Amino acid sequence: MSPEMNPVAGFNQLRRIETSKLFQGIVIAIIILSALTIGAKTYDLPPLVEQTLTVLDNAITVFFLIEILFRFAACTDKKRFLLDGWNLFDTLVVIGSLIPLDNSEAVLLGRLLRVFRVLRLVSVVPELRFLINSLLKAIPRMGYIALLMFIIFYIYAAMGALFFSEVDEDLWGDVAIAMLTLFRVATFEDWTDVMYATMEQYPLSWLYYLTFIFLTAFVFLNMMIGAILEVMGEEQNAAQAQKAHDERDEIARQLKAVQDQLQELTRHITDRQP
Amino acid sequence: MSPEMNPVAGFNQLRRIETSKLFQGIVIAIIILSALTIGAKTYDLPPLVEQTLTVLDNAITVFFLIEILFRFAACTDKKRFLLDGWNLFDTLVVIGSLIPLDNSEAVLLGRLLRVFRVLRLVSVVPELRFLINSLLKAIPRMGYIALLMFIIFYIYAAMGALFFSEVDEDLWGDVAIAMLTLFRVATFEDWTDVMYATMEQYPLSWLYYLTFIFLTAFVFLNMMIGAILEVMGEEQNAAQAQKAHDERDEIARQLKAVQDQLQELTRHITDRQP
Amino acid sequence: MSPEMNPVAGFNQLRRIETSKLFQGIVIAIIILSALTIGAKTYDLPPLVEQTLTVLDNAITVFFLIEILFRFAACTDKKRFLLDGWNLFDTLVVIGSLIPLDNSEAVLLGRLLRVFRVLRLVSVVPELRFLINSLLKAIPRMGYIALLMFIIFYIYAAMGALFFSEVDEDLWGDVAIAMLTLFRVATFEDWTDVMYATMEQYPLSWLYYLTFIFLTAFVFLNMMIGAILEVMGEEQNAAQAQKAHDERDEIARQLKAVQDQLQELTRHITDRQP
Amino acid sequence: MSPEMNPVAGFNQLRRIETSKLFQGIVIAIIILSALTIGAKTYDLPPLVEQTLTVLDNAITVFFLIEILFRFAACTDKKRFLLDGWNLFDTLVVIGSLIPLDNSEAVLLGRLLRVFRVLRLVSVVPELRFLINSLLKAIPRMGYIALLMFIIFYIYAAMGALFFSEVDEDLWGDVAIAMLTLFRVATFEDWTDVMYATMEQYPLSWLYYLTFIFLTAFVFLNMMIGAILEVMGEEQNAAQAQKAHDERDEIARQLKAVQDQLQELTRHITDRQP
Repeated sequence: MSPEMNPVAGFNQLRRIETSKLFQGIVIAIIILSALTIGAKTYDLPPLVEQTLTVLDNAITVFFLIEILFRFAACTDKKRFLLDGWNLFDTLVVIGSLIPLDNSEAVLLGRLLRVFRVLRLVSVVPELRFLINSLLKAIPRMGYIALLMFIIFYIYAAMGALFFSEVDEDLWGDVAIAMLTLFRVATFEDWTDVMYATMEQYPLSWLYYLTFIFLTAFVFLNMMIGAILEVMGEEQNAAQAQKAHDERDEIARQLKAVQDQLQELTRHITDRQP
Repeated sequence: MSPEMNPVAGFNQLRRIETSKLFQGIVIAIIILSALTIGAKTYDLPPLVEQTLTVLDNAITVFFLIEILFRFAACTDKKRFLLDGWNLFDTLVVIGSLIPLDNSEAVLLGRLLRVFRVLRLVSVVPELRFLINSLLKAIPRMGYIALLMFIIFYIYAAMGALFFSEVDEDLWGDVAIAMLTLFRVATFEDWTDVMYATMEQYPLSWLYYLTFIFLTAFVFLNMMIGAILEVMGEEQNAAQAQKAHDERDEIARQLKAVQDQLQELTRHITDRQP
Repeated sequence: MSPEMNPVAGFNQLRRIETSKLFQGIVIAIIILSALTIGAKTYDLPPLVEQTLTVLDNAITVFFLIEILFRFAACTDKKRFLLDGWNLFDTLVVIGSLIPLDNSEAVLLGRLLRVFRVLRLVSVVPELRFLINSLLKAIPRMGYIALLMFIIFYIYAAMGALFFSEVDEDLWGDVAIAMLTLFRVATFEDWTDVMYATMEQYPLSWLYYLTFIFLTAFVFLNMMIGAILEVMGEEQNAAQAQKAHDERDEIARQLKAVQDQLQELTRHITDRQP
Repeated sequence: MSPEMNPVAGFNQLRRIETSKLFQGIVIAIIILSALTIGAKTYDLPPLVEQTLTVLDNAITVFFLIEILFRFAACTDKKRFLLDGWNLFDTLVVIGSLIPLDNSEAVLLGRLLRVFRVLRLVSVVPELRFLINSLLKAIPRMGYIALLMFIIFYIYAAMGALFFSEVDEDLWGDVAIAMLTLFRVATFEDWTDVMYATMEQYPLSWLYYLTFIFLTAFVFLNMMIGAILEVMGEEQNAAQAQKAHDERDEIARQLKAVQDQLQELTRHITDRQP
């Protein structure tokens, strides 16, 4: 019987290890260590430390590889594991780090991939994963507002490129550069310098900037208010409304009992009537 | 009988086409194409591409013209069609593109009109139209706050032009320029440069800037809070209150039934009483 | 009898005029005219126009004087009229304009007083007066937060003047200048220039700026959230809660009727019982 | 009996003094005086005033020492007094001021400690203490959001240090400097200067800045919305919900009375039935 039980027992053991606080702690510690090595590499370091960091880096890659295989082995539903976005992300980042790179361009890419390993912290800490998921849920809500903002930017950029391209080719050369310049204006970053330059040729161009700033600020403000209201409508009042609903249910149940009592009483009286 | 049915059948066909997803999709695609040609024209292009773009532009104008005539033909209530702001806007933009322009000034104006064709996207996509309508509804709410802001700006601008015009004619020359400068201060754009310049002559002028910043920020903040509260009072709680109201209605109905039962019972008893 | 009635009839006539739309409209028009003459004077004008403006200005002053005397005469409760802040403000501004001024300093002061006449618009338009009153009500709510902010600014300014005064005397010379510099940092206005300058001598001084920015932003944010919540708690839910309360009252009344019916019924039955 | 009563009577007297408005007022006045002397010292003063300030400073230190000993003596629960954070802070600041300092470095430290004495205002004024406590309560709420923000900053800083360090060593030299630069970008402080510099070498680097700005702004916005909602869910509706709950309780009690009446009635009728 023991050889038959073995795989299940081993699997249970895997699960026990995977869900243990110690294992989670070690993984988080290794990810933070990985983040620190990535940060350390941006400093000028003596060759010995550099070599140590490279060795450490490879060790971390191997650890991550083992960890993911381990998680996969401990998972009951293999298919769901593979379809989960966070697991896919983890796997891609680790596999990407494994590819040996020679030329300098590829080295940069490899280091970039290692940077993204810091994001594994999000996939491992449940609270952060929950936070990211709730942030992702907020995106579709802003879809049409973002489209409207893009249309405003595009129209103003086309106008800007049409009129101001001869004033400053670097800021208004084409519609793409003009959109970048408008984003700068929307963040109020030295926007008056941009305005004063065009006002020399078009004295009324302050109208262009002011209407743009008012429009974007107004749309942005209403978007924010809308977002607050929408989330509030969904989440916040639910619990309170539920409680009020439950209490009203209780009252309705009491009323039903009164009606039943009355019916009984009526039956009593009519039964006696003959 | 068939010749009599023809116009109605043809009209129904028109309506079917106009409301079809395919037709809507084509119109949206053409508008996006139009936006892209407008954007493309802001780049330096070889003459052949320029000519192609001009041909494309004319084709789009013709398409828009046909589309609007088509919509008008498919509309049952012609009068309402003409009075609808979005249709008027569409018609104006398309007719404006049709006028042949020769001199360079008019060419700029023609290109500007073509830029506004991108806004047709708003009039065609219902979600964007709904968004714009809800934004427009938010404007009157801000009317008196805007007036108050204008009064604050005007008073400070008059003071600024009175005292600081000799410090920097370009920033404080007259009341209009001073208002523009104050708007710059309100966006925190290099406002300290403006302040340090006037502080050399009027050491206490920081009071002017700080009170202005506090006043505008305070009014703006309260406007935002007011807007959030007002919209919330209108929209958000409506659904929840309605639900609570419906449930209370249900309870009131149950109570009515109890009263009816009691009345019946009383009648029973008093009837038997003789 | 007529001589006795005269003063009352005259007084009623005064009141009728004072509350009439026409009178209000004329006063608002004159205030706007006054604002325009103040604005016009900031431009370089030919002497003839200047003289016309001066005449107009005096005419407006006289009109305002008559208007206030008229309002005072039409007011039933003279004492309350004198104690009302808006009336006091109106009177002061008008009397201030009447004092003849000769030397140039006083001329500036006189023009400054005329600028404040634009504020009379607020005292005359009821909607603006209501807005200002509601803004004034929001001030005490922010009292202790403002005090806390001031303490933060003062402590950081004292530290800044202590450590950085030798780096830049103009920015950190004493505690007052340092507070102004910190306000600049709080508005993100070229704050990195200030920071980079001090970082050359104190490499860790970024800690000073970052903690300051985080502290002020954090306090400001919580103040805003607090303000939103407080106003909401007061105003917004009142109407809705009242409605729910009324509906619950209706239900309680229905229940009372049920109880009365039951009592009647019981009396009926017990009466019959012997 | 009187010698036995003495300590208790003396203690009560101490408490009476400590809780009296006059004592509180004197302490607050001395703290403000202390703040003013700290501020005054940042100005260039004649030697006589400097000496007076030093004497005053020592007098204030002695006063604070006596005050804390007095508070300790008047406190019934000595242990709780020692464990209270505000009292510890007060004691540390006062004791710190007592240590005699000779060399210039230590003098700076001593003056820094005296600056923190202004914070004693917070520990003495109950409203400010309440405000600070409520702000401190808001911190854990922001814990994971702050961690997420730090991860975003770290990843972007690592990327920035990887790619842009050769563009500008002062801005992107290592991961720590890059984080400071990114904080500057997040506050929109001359961020386009930073971007234009890197765009010369990496024309697509605007993507880096725009995604960073959108990410941080998006996370920040959602954090703010979340904070508003969370606080609202906790505090604001509690009172209103309680009132609605009470009224529903009243209705439930009335219904119970109806049921009791019915039961009585039924018993009456069934009793009579035989």
